[in-house]
Amino acid sequence: MQALKERILAEGQNLGGGILKVDGFINHQVDPGLMQACGEELARRFANIGATKVLTAEISGIAPALTTAGQLNLPVVYARKHKPITMPDQVFLTLTPSHTKGRTVELIVSPEYLGAKERVLIIDDFLASGQTILGLVRLAQAAGASIVGIGALVEKAFEGGRAALEYLNVPIESLAIISRMEGDEITFSD
Amino acid sequence: MQALKERILAEGQNLGGGILKVDGFINHQVDPGLMQACGEELARRFANIGATKVLTAEISGIAPALTTAGQLNLPVVYARKHKPITMPDQVFLTLTPSHTKGRTVELIVSPEYLGAKERVLIIDDFLASGQTILGLVRLAQAAGASIVGIGALVEKAFEGGRAALEYLNVPIESLAIISRMEGDEITFSD
Repeated sequence: MQALKERILAEGQNLGGGILKVDGFINHQVDPGLMQACGEELARRFANIGATKVLTAEISGIAPALTTAGQLNLPVVYARKHKPITMPDQVFLTLTPSHTKGRTVELIVSPEYLGAKERVLIIDDFLASGQTILGLVRLAQAAGASIVGIGALVEKAFEGGRAALEYLNVPIESLAIISRMEGDEITFSD
Repeated sequence: MQALKERILAEGQNLGGGILKVDGFINHQVDPGLMQACGEELARRFANIGATKVLTAEISGIAPALTTAGQLNLPVVYARKHKPITMPDQVFLTLTPSHTKGRTVELIVSPEYLGAKERVLIIDDFLASGQTILGLVRLAQAAGASIVGIGALVEKAFEGGRAALEYLNVPIESLAIISRMEGDEITFSD
């Protein structure tokens, strides 16, 4: 998606170690207009998969999941990283390594909002190693739900996430696929 | 706002101790259509305050802040509770007690996205004791920015947050003001 790629080229910063800083429009400050356009594009790509629910992980997945779900007219569930007191004792919980945090985090979903009949579209901000998305896949599978698609704003193709998810045999869509980051140079493959 | 109040009456659960569970449409699962309508209504109420930025706190503030900011055509910044590795060493940080977590949490904003000239509209999901919003106020003040308005989806009037914020002398708007929760009965004052 051209608008997202242009914004990454204009404002994204390669911090080294595979870390792309996009805090000015995705991860800390959010541009609602860009996020809406991204949601519309993801919704367009997943218009025909018959999804019944969008699943994401707090925190940075919420904005793109919300705009995508809004376009598809679906509810969105965000997996929590800490169990709030409003959640029942019995939950779906999985552990996943966090690239940007340098430790393992929990992903928790209440069975109240993820049932066996759901057809789940997973949306996140980044597809990198795929570990967070694989955590969401395990939560959906624990609920007995089907995964019908996976979408991300930005894919770091050199971290192998797409290959790790291919066994699911569902469409995987990213709006900006980065093949290489070298110093100030960011190269897209799409 | 009628649609929000009806949804609270239909699906909200009083868990006791002043805790209102709205996990089915605000805090874990989100209804994007309702959230869009809430954003439109908050934007309408704050259309003439000259805000330049919307400020919220992760996690549950993100959705209403995003839809409000989208309507007002403003960027939204969400204060982080953990400093990500993409953030500079020098940040604005404050501590705030979390009602639903039972402990103190950090709220952190990067000076990159909150400057002295900003006119800040604070949006959050709940206005209860006002502690989280007061934390956001301190962050904005640390940046030298002005607070020009405060908006919430749901206000628990019996927790005194509005009184705690009144010294700021800015408009405070909530879309559903709960005056009383007794057993299964939820009463609105507006």
